[in-house]
Amino acid sequence: MPADYILSKPMHSFKALSGQFNQRFDQRVFPDKPSGLYDPAQYILGLGGKRIRPVLCLMGNELFDEIREDAFDVAVAVELFHNFTLIHDDIMDEAPLRRGEPTVHYKYGPHSALLAGDVMLVQAYEYLNRIKASYIHRILQVFSRTAREVCEGQQLDMDYAALALSAVDMGDYRHMIALKTSVLLAASLQMGGILGGGSEGNLDHLYAFGKNLGIAFQIQDDYLDAFGDPEKFGKQPGGDILVNKKTFLLLKAWEMGSPAVRKAILELMESETPEKVMRMLAIYHDCQVDRWAREEKMSYVYKANEHLEKITVLSTRKKELSELVDILLNRES
Amino acid sequence: MPADYILSKPMHSFKALSGQFNQRFDQRVFPDKPSGLYDPAQYILGLGGKRIRPVLCLMGNELFDEIREDAFDVAVAVELFHNFTLIHDDIMDEAPLRRGEPTVHYKYGPHSALLAGDVMLVQAYEYLNRIKASYIHRILQVFSRTAREVCEGQQLDMDYAALALSAVDMGDYRHMIALKTSVLLAASLQMGGILGGGSEGNLDHLYAFGKNLGIAFQIQDDYLDAFGDPEKFGKQPGGDILVNKKTFLLLKAWEMGSPAVRKAILELMESETPEKVMRMLAIYHDCQVDRWAREEKMSYVYKANEHLEKITVLSTRKKELSELVDILLNRES
Repeated sequence: MPADYILSKPMHSFKALSGQFNQRFDQRVFPDKPSGLYDPAQYILGLGGKRIRPVLCLMGNELFDEIREDAFDVAVAVELFHNFTLIHDDIMDEAPLRRGEPTVHYKYGPHSALLAGDVMLVQAYEYLNRIKASYIHRILQVFSRTAREVCEGQQLDMDYAALALSAVDMGDYRHMIALKTSVLLAASLQMGGILGGGSEGNLDHLYAFGKNLGIAFQIQDDYLDAFGDPEKFGKQPGGDILVNKKTFLLLKAWEMGSPAVRKAILELMESETPEKVMRMLAIYHDCQVDRWAREEKMSYVYKANEHLEKITVLSTRKKELSELVDILLNRES
Repeated sequence: MPADYILSKPMHSFKALSGQFNQRFDQRVFPDKPSGLYDPAQYILGLGGKRIRPVLCLMGNELFDEIREDAFDVAVAVELFHNFTLIHDDIMDEAPLRRGEPTVHYKYGPHSALLAGDVMLVQAYEYLNRIKASYIHRILQVFSRTAREVCEGQQLDMDYAALALSAVDMGDYRHMIALKTSVLLAASLQMGGILGGGSEGNLDHLYAFGKNLGIAFQIQDDYLDAFGDPEKFGKQPGGDILVNKKTFLLLKAWEMGSPAVRKAILELMESETPEKVMRMLAIYHDCQVDRWAREEKMSYVYKANEHLEKITVLSTRKKELSELVDILLNRES
């Protein structure tokens, strides 16, 4: 089939591609033994998730060409890397639950979790080494740069967690969020695009699309944690407020707040009153942080879409990426 | 210079190559910021060490050809990987000291140590991605397989630590030691050999040389911990005995011991008498475990040298590898 004919047709949907990916990924990825090493790794994969990053990799490829077998290997590598970061982040955050189930270190102990994470990172590189030789150098470059940035983001997150609220600059925080959550989404699209033969200019726009999408997604995450409908969201709002997590909302409230409001915020953060969440939400409302967050999210969606528009393929072909923005960013849960 | 002329001359000595390596490696390997991430990584590199693995990589290359620039990149990758395992192993072993200085997690906290280890592993792969495209696939294959084996070895080590002495099979234990310590020595030589253009047969012998050398080295390590001259060894003997570490010596004593001796071993392991070390050493002597260890070590040295002999290069060329065996295995400290 000639490429121009293919490229005039729509891509597969997110749902279709995630089905294709899961069909391969659901088979056991790891060896059986030693089970102390591989069972924890297999366990976190079994907790599911939307497999957003591997599907982005497949979509990045399909935007420019038919999906190559190599794209599935890179997609697996990306998902393994993502789960490696989840295991290690959960250790560092001392998180007891992940997707409603015990975290790996709670279930298997911190040492097994640490080592299982390590071997998943190694295995991610093993999947990358399956692809065609002519692509390896470039894919490895993007993958390792991104992996390093994600580590830097996690370190900055820990650094900021230890700082006073007044010492965290919104711009620095945004940079941390970009490293911690956006660059992997962006790189997943970009690596797919490389395999699809996208031009440098198109790859840059694809990367920027993913990066802005990621920041919008994080703002929404913070927003839903505070203002989400408990029935649709599946949990009580205010989890971030209870643990004094520095979020876009908290930083913005601090930025907007008068000295009196700032004093109230600090007092609330130190208190353990049962009304902590309710009273912080009242401050957020007073500072119009909820409205700001909705607008801020939309401004990133807008930027993302601007970059998507500039990619020189037929708009029919881009439709599924636009739809993906809607799927990810109009969710209420 | 024609290759056959070069290959009739001796290689550089271990000392000369480690000097060349350190000259490059002593410059700061990591970026400055975030310092919470990179300072711990730089710290462990600053603790020194003999840089055995990177030098093995250079020697593996030089055995077959002049040293390629690529070999230095692989050597750095190997040393970064080795230090990544030291950081994470020290967390898992809850070790307070490494080379007489505080371990990374003692100095910087377990979370920074965890993340610093992660980024070192990523950076190791970044160095591998610098080498000539035609070698990348093969080098990555050896490197990742080895990295996985080292993780498996560490898991098996933790598994065996939790088992009763009677449940650990000497053959399984030997396999664990090979994974945990020997395969990286072997792979360092092999990767150097690949870059030097060694034939498959020669590379296999080079790998087997390194693997047997590694096991001999571990037996010696266990031996010196028990029977080493405190003045030359720089520490009091019996550290392994005090923490009930399963070593070649302990397993062999168990294997050789009568029911009465086994009972005495178990009682000693549970006791905290100040005479614990002295009394366990007496058992080792009674079972002739010291003599066995010396012989066992020599049998691995013999196997290593057999493989070295089978490598089809002039013996002049191999001389420095033979000397290395002496340097590593006739040490008393």
